[in-house]
Amino acid sequence: DSNLKVFSLNSNPDLASEIADNIGVELGKCTVTSFSDGEIQINIEESIRGCDVYVVQSTCEPVNQHIMELLIMIDALKRASARTINIVMPYYGYARQDRKARAREPITAKLIADLLETAGASRVLMLDLHAPQIQGFFNLPIDHLVGVPILSDYFEEKNFEDLVIVSPDHGGVTRARKMADRLKAPIAIIDKRRPRPNVAEVMNIVGNIEGKTAILIDDIIDTAGTITLAANALIENGAKDVYACCTHPVLSGPAIERIENSKIKELVVTNTIPLGEDKSSEKITELSVAGLISEAIIRVHERQSISILFD
Amino acid sequence: DSNLKVFSLNSNPDLASEIADNIGVELGKCTVTSFSDGEIQINIEESIRGCDVYVVQSTCEPVNQHIMELLIMIDALKRASARTINIVMPYYGYARQDRKARAREPITAKLIADLLETAGASRVLMLDLHAPQIQGFFNLPIDHLVGVPILSDYFEEKNFEDLVIVSPDHGGVTRARKMADRLKAPIAIIDKRRPRPNVAEVMNIVGNIEGKTAILIDDIIDTAGTITLAANALIENGAKDVYACCTHPVLSGPAIERIENSKIKELVVTNTIPLGEDKSSEKITELSVAGLISEAIIRVHERQSISILFD
Ligand SMILES: Nc1ncnc2c1ncn2[C@@H]1O[C@H](COP(=O)(O)O)[C@@H](O)[C@H]1O
Ligand SMILES: Nc1ncnc2c1ncn2[C@@H]1O[C@H](COP(=O)(O)O)[C@@H](O)[C@H]1O
Repeated sequence: DSNLKVFSLNSNPDLASEIADNIGVELGKCTVTSFSDGEIQINIEESIRGCDVYVVQSTCEPVNQHIMELLIMIDALKRASARTINIVMPYYGYARQDRKARAREPITAKLIADLLETAGASRVLMLDLHAPQIQGFFNLPIDHLVGVPILSDYFEEKNFEDLVIVSPDHGGVTRARKMADRLKAPIAIIDKRRPRPNVAEVMNIVGNIEGKTAILIDDIIDTAGTITLAANALIENGAKDVYACCTHPVLSGPAIERIENSKIKELVVTNTIPLGEDKSSEKITELSVAGLISEAIIRVHERQSISILFD
Repeated sequence: DSNLKVFSLNSNPDLASEIADNIGVELGKCTVTSFSDGEIQINIEESIRGCDVYVVQSTCEPVNQHIMELLIMIDALKRASARTINIVMPYYGYARQDRKARAREPITAKLIADLLETAGASRVLMLDLHAPQIQGFFNLPIDHLVGVPILSDYFEEKNFEDLVIVSPDHGGVTRARKMADRLKAPIAIIDKRRPRPNVAEVMNIVGNIEGKTAILIDDIIDTAGTITLAANALIENGAKDVYACCTHPVLSGPAIERIENSKIKELVVTNTIPLGEDKSSEKITELSVAGLISEAIIRVHERQSISILFD
């Protein structure tokens, strides 16, 4: 369909190419560079008049640069008479700033939603939002895809014997439950508590992990503090092996070093955020979400339900 | 007035302090830092409920970071029940992207206006906009201050004998005229032409400059290509000395080197963009716009006309 165009900005060029290949189109021609003073310069080098345009951009590091690239691209597409401007945002930056946890905090996840609407986005496709409530920050249609099946399928092929799926905190139990259902395994929960103020946290494990192969699952792994402490606590409490997985490998600051030095045997992630050279480790396996996203794009474009992709 | 609060973000801390001093208030307490993954974290550390808040931020380099800081700060102030959120933006980044010069270009100056409104700004105070039309991009009240008097006053004290004010291009003639009026001097214009495609530009000078002290005036000096070529052309055509001035010293890329190697005797700029260490040169003199801006803030806050500041 020559009406469907896929453009890549600077966050995920490889993923965008893979998506375009799957769909059977060439990536749209555009250059996204900077003027001498750091202002973003975008040149769209082919007509997109009347087209349904899909723009692939994760708002990962450098997050503010990637957000502005996206907003300026939307502005350019709007003024060039695109019919619809569909944002494919595998990773939604600022998702953790989704509520006022303290007085006078911003709710940046809501701000980003408003900025995308103001610039002129028609719809947004996202993957494993940190909080599903963020969908409600938009007055646009949102397609929310789920990475658990991709991660589960990978572990399923390993045919582990005595498996347990572990949530590293209370907030992630629903996600662990989903994976456990697919792998027909029980769940366990790391129940972190601080007995008194200024006393070290206690890692209490709810559920039976002894002698089992444990898979820790989270949506985002950022500095990897939580996940590596959890892994070590599992081993200390008798787990046989510990694997970990997540959809969004932010992996900032000390993350790689912590993972290398931890009891985690293998960390499985997706390419919603590219790992890049500074984030490589023998322990990390990267799975692609290109198949999932391209299937969703084709279904959206052909006006088919995509709810089949949520399971 | 305890209802008036001045906050500084990260672009112009010194200017913001100077403004607060002039007004007779303490700078508002807030910290603007980054999380490990580069996401901006803002903590406003005092109540601003019901207050008229002035936020000082130029969207100079790193421009995308500074824009996002400002938008997130506006969001936080709005949610903390500020009565009005007044943006003091001495330098408006992306102002040169104010029209579609080619097909499928964004109009980023308009996008920025929309983003500020969406975030929740109540009014914006700006200085020497690249194009005054940008005021019309907003549906908010805009106070547009002018830097020419500050620059003119500096040169007036030098008591030059035989003065001519020179615009480095056709677009800047009105500005040169304003300075010439204040200094009671004639004007001249650098009339750049390309005789045929792929032939070097010819620097033609319209007006009499022979034996005179020339002052080149522009709004923005970015890579300093235009201004240094103009200065050298003036000397070659018989000017006695060449000074240059501008409101906004972007000074990116080769700017400092070009200025050092040019025939410009002194470059006079304002602190709408701080020079920083990498932009220092013996040739550059920096004047402060703090007096002008604090006077405007006091007048706005006391509901007085500020048109007196436009002359
Ligand atoms: N980029 C970030 N890195 C680390 N912490 C963050 C970030 N953004 C927000 N937060 C904090 O993370 C908390 C929310 O995380 P969660 O409880 O996992 O939803 C809030 O208290 C935020 O202040
Ligand atoms: N940050 C920038 N640096 C250099 N050129 C720019 C920048 N932003 C926009 N432009 C270009 O500058 C031209 C407008 O400048 P002007 O003719 O002086 O108004 C447009 O053609 C823009 O493409």
